[in-house]
Amino acid sequence: MSVTTPAGFSAAGVTAGLKHSGGLDLAVVQNLGPLSSAATVFTSNRCKANPVIWSQQVMRGGSVRAIVLNSGGANCYTGSIGFQTTHATAEAVGDRLGVSAGEVIVCSTGLIGEQLDLDKITAGIWDATLALQKDDSTSAEAGLSAARAIMTTDTTPKQSAVTAPAGWSIGGMAKGAGMLAPGLATMLVVITTDAVLDSAQLDTALRTATRITFDRLDSDGCMSTNDTVSLLGSGASGIAPDEAEFAAALTAICQDLTLQLQADAEGSAHDVAITVRAAETEADAVTVARAVSRSNLFKTAIFGNDPNWGRVLAAVGTTDAAFDPYNIDVTINGVQVCTAGEPDQPRELVDLTPRSVTVLITLHAGDAEATIWTNDLTHAYVEENSAYSS
Amino acid sequence: MSVTTPAGFSAAGVTAGLKHSGGLDLAVVQNLGPLSSAATVFTSNRCKANPVIWSQQVMRGGSVRAIVLNSGGANCYTGSIGFQTTHATAEAVGDRLGVSAGEVIVCSTGLIGEQLDLDKITAGIWDATLALQKDDSTSAEAGLSAARAIMTTDTTPKQSAVTAPAGWSIGGMAKGAGMLAPGLATMLVVITTDAVLDSAQLDTALRTATRITFDRLDSDGCMSTNDTVSLLGSGASGIAPDEAEFAAALTAICQDLTLQLQADAEGSAHDVAITVRAAETEADAVTVARAVSRSNLFKTAIFGNDPNWGRVLAAVGTTDAAFDPYNIDVTINGVQVCTAGEPDQPRELVDLTPRSVTVLITLHAGDAEATIWTNDLTHAYVEENSAYSS
Repeated sequence: MSVTTPAGFSAAGVTAGLKHSGGLDLAVVQNLGPLSSAATVFTSNRCKANPVIWSQQVMRGGSVRAIVLNSGGANCYTGSIGFQTTHATAEAVGDRLGVSAGEVIVCSTGLIGEQLDLDKITAGIWDATLALQKDDSTSAEAGLSAARAIMTTDTTPKQSAVTAPAGWSIGGMAKGAGMLAPGLATMLVVITTDAVLDSAQLDTALRTATRITFDRLDSDGCMSTNDTVSLLGSGASGIAPDEAEFAAALTAICQDLTLQLQADAEGSAHDVAITVRAAETEADAVTVARAVSRSNLFKTAIFGNDPNWGRVLAAVGTTDAAFDPYNIDVTINGVQVCTAGEPDQPRELVDLTPRSVTVLITLHAGDAEATIWTNDLTHAYVEENSAYSS
Repeated sequence: MSVTTPAGFSAAGVTAGLKHSGGLDLAVVQNLGPLSSAATVFTSNRCKANPVIWSQQVMRGGSVRAIVLNSGGANCYTGSIGFQTTHATAEAVGDRLGVSAGEVIVCSTGLIGEQLDLDKITAGIWDATLALQKDDSTSAEAGLSAARAIMTTDTTPKQSAVTAPAGWSIGGMAKGAGMLAPGLATMLVVITTDAVLDSAQLDTALRTATRITFDRLDSDGCMSTNDTVSLLGSGASGIAPDEAEFAAALTAICQDLTLQLQADAEGSAHDVAITVRAAETEADAVTVARAVSRSNLFKTAIFGNDPNWGRVLAAVGTTDAAFDPYNIDVTINGVQVCTAGEPDQPRELVDLTPRSVTVLITLHAGDAEATIWTNDLTHAYVEENSAYSS
C-alpha cells in the first residue's frame, strides 16, 4: 500500500545528509508510463518556496515523468541561489532518468530561509536513481523508503492505496505534522495511479478530492509555503476507469492520508472533528468550523478535557456566516451541552478522555454541512515548536 | 490615577461572593455630574453576552449615571433568565442611586454558559452603593478597589490617568488577560473624564482612540463575547477642552491600558510589537501584522527565543495585502534577518531574551504603517487555559 501499488511506478528513498538526524531525506518517484499525465495543486500561500515556483512551470507542460522530494530544508526565501538549486535538482534527475528536467517536479520541506547543500542533493539523486534501476524499486519496501525520506517532524510514514474491482489502482504517500492548514493543497503528497486518464481528467478528480479532504484539515492554522499534492498517472493498467468511481476512490485515499496527518500532528493529544450542520451554505459551514478550529482557547480546553462550549460559541460569533446567535446547538462527544443558545445537559457528562473528539454545531440556517479536522493545543506542541527550529 | 481622578466620579469594589477565590468581584462607578454624557464601544462578536445586549439599549438613551461590573461569570449564553439577571442588576443599582435603570450600564466577565447568582449580586450592590455614600468613595483607594473587583485571570489591576494643563482630567481602569483580541472594543474598560463634552463628542474621541489602541491588541486571537469600553463624562471640571487635545490624551490613556493588558496576558513570556511599514494602506498594514500575531508557529518560536523569520513570512503570505512576496524585509529586535526575501544578517545575532520584542516588516508597497501588540504562546498559556475553566 504505497505509491508503488499502481503499475508503472518505481520509488526510492535515500540518505543525502540533509537532515541532521542522518535519516532518509531524499525520495524520487518515477512514472514508467506509458502515460505521463499529471495534476498538482499547490499552496495558496503567496510566499511560495522555490520548488513550488519551479513545479508550477513544470505543470504548464502537462507531462510529469518524476518527482524528487527532499526533507531537511524548505528552500523557501533563499533567493536566486535557492531557485538555481531547485533547477539543478530537476536537471540532475532528468539527466539520470533520461527525461527532460521540465518533466520533473521538485518538492522540499524543512526550515525556511536556509540554503540547501546542492552537492549533497546531487549525490543523493545519484544514489536514488541507482536504486530506481533495481528490480525491487517497484516494491512496497521501495515505496515505504520514499515515504520515510520525506518525513520531518512526522513520527510515522503515511501511506494509502486501493485497487478497484475494475483493475486499476491508486497509491499515495504524505508528510506533514506542523504548519498544517492547507489553503488549496497541503503538505507534500504524492499520489499515483495506473488508470488510463489524461491530465485534465486527473486534475478534475484531484480538485474534487482535495477540496473536501486536505483542504478541511486545519491542525494549527498555519499555512505552509511548500504545500504540494501531485497525482501522477501511468496508464499502465490499460484500464480507463469510470470517472466518478475514480474520483470517489481518490477522495477516500486523500481522506485516509488526511486523517493520518491529523493523528500525527505535532504534539497533539486529541483528534477533533468539528462538524457544522444545518448551515445555509457549505462555505458557511466551513467558515464556522474553521473559526472554531483556530481558537486557541477552544484547543487548550480540549487538551484539558474541558467541554468549554462557551469558547465554541465565542469563535462561531466572530464569523459572518448566516445564523441567529441565540439559536445554535452544540453537542460534544454526543452530549448536547447547549440548545438554542442556553445550557442543556451538564458539561460534566462529556467524556473527553478518548483521543477522538467530535463537536457538532447546528446553525438552524439551512441544510449544508461540512467537517474540519483539527487538533488540540498542548504543552508538547509548544515544546516542539519553541525548542527546535523547523 | 484611577477612574476617580477626574472630578465628579465615585467608585467602589466589594466582595459579592461570585468568585470562588472570595476576592473583590463587584464594582460600581457612579457619575455624579453635572453632565451624564457617555460613549461606549462593544465587542463586534455576534455572540453577545446579556449585559452587552442590555447596555446597547442603555446607550440608545444617551445618558449614563453609573456602571456596574462583575467578575465571576460572563452571563453569556444564559438565555432569558440571564437577561433578567442583567435587568435586575441595573434596576437594583438604579433604585439605590436614585437614577433610572435605563441609565445604568452592566458589564460581566467570567465563564460563559453559567447563570449568575442574583441574590449575591443584589447583596453586593447593597454593599457597593453604601460605600459610594462615604466621603472616601472619590479617593484613589476607591478607584483601586473597583479596578481589583473586575479582575479575572489578571494578576494586577490596570489603571491610568492624566490631568491636562487646561485643568480637565481623564482616568481609566481595565481588565482582560485572555480571550484578548478585540473586534471593535475589548475587555472591560471604564474611562472617566470631567471635561465638558457631550456624548457625541465623547463618541468621536473614543472611536478615534480605540481604533489604534485596544483594537490593535491581539494577544491570543480570541474575541470575547463581553468586551465593553465605556467613557463617561461628568463635566465637573467646568472646562470644555480642545477636542483634538482631548482625543490625543484619551488615546494615550487607552494605549497605556492596552500595554498593561498585553504585559499581563495569560501565561505570556514576551510582549511583541509587530510593526508593518511601507504598506499601501493602513488596513493592509493591520491585516499583515494581525496575521503574524495569530500564527501559533511564530508565537511558539518567540517563546523559544528563536528568531524564525520564515514563520513571519509564511504568515504574511496568507494575506491579500498589496506586496511583492519577494521584496519584503524583516527586522527582529533591530537585526535585519531578511532583505528582499533573502537571508541577510545571521539569525544568531538576534537576542530574544528580553521580554520586549519588536518585529518590523517592510512591504515596499506604500507609506502606511500600523502596529499590532501580541504575546508569545507558552506552556503557561496552555496550562492556564486547559487546567481551569474560564
